Amino acid sequence: MTKTQEFINAIIPHKIAKKTGTGLADVNIALSKYWGKRDSELNLPTNSSLSISLPGLGTRTQVSVHNNADITSDQIWLNNQKLDADNPFATRLSKFLDLFRATPSTYFEINTKNTVPTAAGLASSASGYAALVLALNDCFDWQLTKKDLSLLARLGSGSASRSVYDGFVIWHKGNAENGLDSFAETINTCWPEFCVGLLEIDLKAKKIGSTAGMQQTVNHCALYQAWPEKAEEDVKAIQQAIVQKDFSQLGALAENNALSMHATMIATWPPILYWQPESVEAMQTVWALRESGIDVYFTMDAGPNLKLLFLEKDADAIQQAFPKLKLIRPFH
Amino acid sequence: MTKTQEFINAIIPHKIAKKTGTGLADVNIALSKYWGKRDSELNLPTNSSLSISLPGLGTRTQVSVHNNADITSDQIWLNNQKLDADNPFATRLSKFLDLFRATPSTYFEINTKNTVPTAAGLASSASGYAALVLALNDCFDWQLTKKDLSLLARLGSGSASRSVYDGFVIWHKGNAENGLDSFAETINTCWPEFCVGLLEIDLKAKKIGSTAGMQQTVNHCALYQAWPEKAEEDVKAIQQAIVQKDFSQLGALAENNALSMHATMIATWPPILYWQPESVEAMQTVWALRESGIDVYFTMDAGPNLKLLFLEKDADAIQQAFPKLKLIRPFH
Repeated sequence: MTKTQEFINAIIPHKIAKKTGTGLADVNIALSKYWGKRDSELNLPTNSSLSISLPGLGTRTQVSVHNNADITSDQIWLNNQKLDADNPFATRLSKFLDLFRATPSTYFEINTKNTVPTAAGLASSASGYAALVLALNDCFDWQLTKKDLSLLARLGSGSASRSVYDGFVIWHKGNAENGLDSFAETINTCWPEFCVGLLEIDLKAKKIGSTAGMQQTVNHCALYQAWPEKAEEDVKAIQQAIVQKDFSQLGALAENNALSMHATMIATWPPILYWQPESVEAMQTVWALRESGIDVYFTMDAGPNLKLLFLEKDADAIQQAFPKLKLIRPFH
Repeated sequence: MTKTQEFINAIIPHKIAKKTGTGLADVNIALSKYWGKRDSELNLPTNSSLSISLPGLGTRTQVSVHNNADITSDQIWLNNQKLDADNPFATRLSKFLDLFRATPSTYFEINTKNTVPTAAGLASSASGYAALVLALNDCFDWQLTKKDLSLLARLGSGSASRSVYDGFVIWHKGNAENGLDSFAETINTCWPEFCVGLLEIDLKAKKIGSTAGMQQTVNHCALYQAWPEKAEEDVKAIQQAIVQKDFSQLGALAENNALSMHATMIATWPPILYWQPESVEAMQTVWALRESGIDVYFTMDAGPNLKLLFLEKDADAIQQAFPKLKLIRPFH
């Protein structure tokens, strides 16, 4: 038995589908990033991470099990389009579903709809695998705890472990080899003034995915050695800033964490630069706003887009500087 | 006596001017960067560095000593313009000249001409302090060795230690507390096909100088801890690539070294980003050329400009991709 099968068996009680299942999960933006795996089979991270979920941006997924002998593969629909079996999205999903088949000839029908563009730097795989696991939990009627759902979602996509929750979320890196202590938890804080602004620079699919990007960084970046410890400290400090509602502290820590992650990519050989010229322009605008006294910070993931962090009182000024900004209020 | 005065006294034989002195030195481009000081009084670096001097781009300086009681300050001319005593360039120069005055009322007349714009990312302070030291050596008739001239130039500006030589140059970081083993030496290699292309993105003066930038990085960047060892390894590997005339290896090492230095700045808080949107655009063009099979690499210093590295055989293709490129053949 592989360690992944052992992991699954420790969590799910059975593989008998009861009904059609539905799952709904939001994307999340990491304020302290997940960058580096210590175990790529179990999707175990080298460092803990901390995120904010974005209500209204995410994935809705329906799952059912086929009992039709004519069907010899999973049927996967993404945004109302049926995917070919060799579509990369479909093959990755089917590989994940392998873990939940009662028999090798059990096939799933998956109907998944994103409200974020696939692979655009908003982590649709995070909401995608969280929604899928929630749908499976419903379909199999497992009645799992959030912690177990987070563990399962992690196996599909690391950051999906965080999308099982609303609001601020910590994903503990864990230490166990079996991966059962690497799950996310909510930070029970409500911060109604907290805003996230999405600035879409480029919606084209990425040249290099985040799994490949982080693997290349871990293996070919001399500066990466300092990252895991820094990231662990950032998670603690950001959690404290959240609890104390110290927005400037949170913003500074989050921006520095994101820039440090990008720095490890830039220092990799061959270099990985997700930034576009327009990303730099937007950073310069953020810094100019900050110099003018407006408390705004940014974070960036494995893509060219910026996600701005600010408080409600500055929302107007920031929308004026960035007319195309999509404003999200995570606690409304 | 300060350690700087001790340092000077260990090198120069006297402070009596003999005649008007002249010095001429070229700028240099580091292929493995100097980033971080272990002693800011003596300008001692945390790591060795390696550069290529650019013939024809540099500084010509004339030095004489005033014997006129009416004159109560240094007279400093930069590019035919007389500088006010409170001009930052002039105050830095006068402070350096303090080390060479026979009496407190000895004043110098300095006439210096750059063929590179001041503070534009081409290190005019490197050629500037090298030319000044050469001119002082001539004026005082010290007849110093290149090694001693390199030590003196280092005190004016770290990278000036390298501008005392032509061609490829190594600045050994040294270990001694008195700073007498931190000097540059030539790598005696002639590589006629080796080309450097200057791509000027923005000739405006920098927002943050390199001394302030490196100090901020050393103190406020978690990733910096890995830099000194990496830089030391890069110097050795680039030297080997030069000796073996392995251009692809040299280019890859130099580009990764430059990007790693910028990465330490990007990961600093507050962030230091010398790049402009046009810098990113130019990087993308370099990477596209490389994907198309043209062996071109870039390096960047504390500014937005790119310096391209390539061999003569690819010069035409590269000039076509970058019509404004200024082509330099360091060994012609």
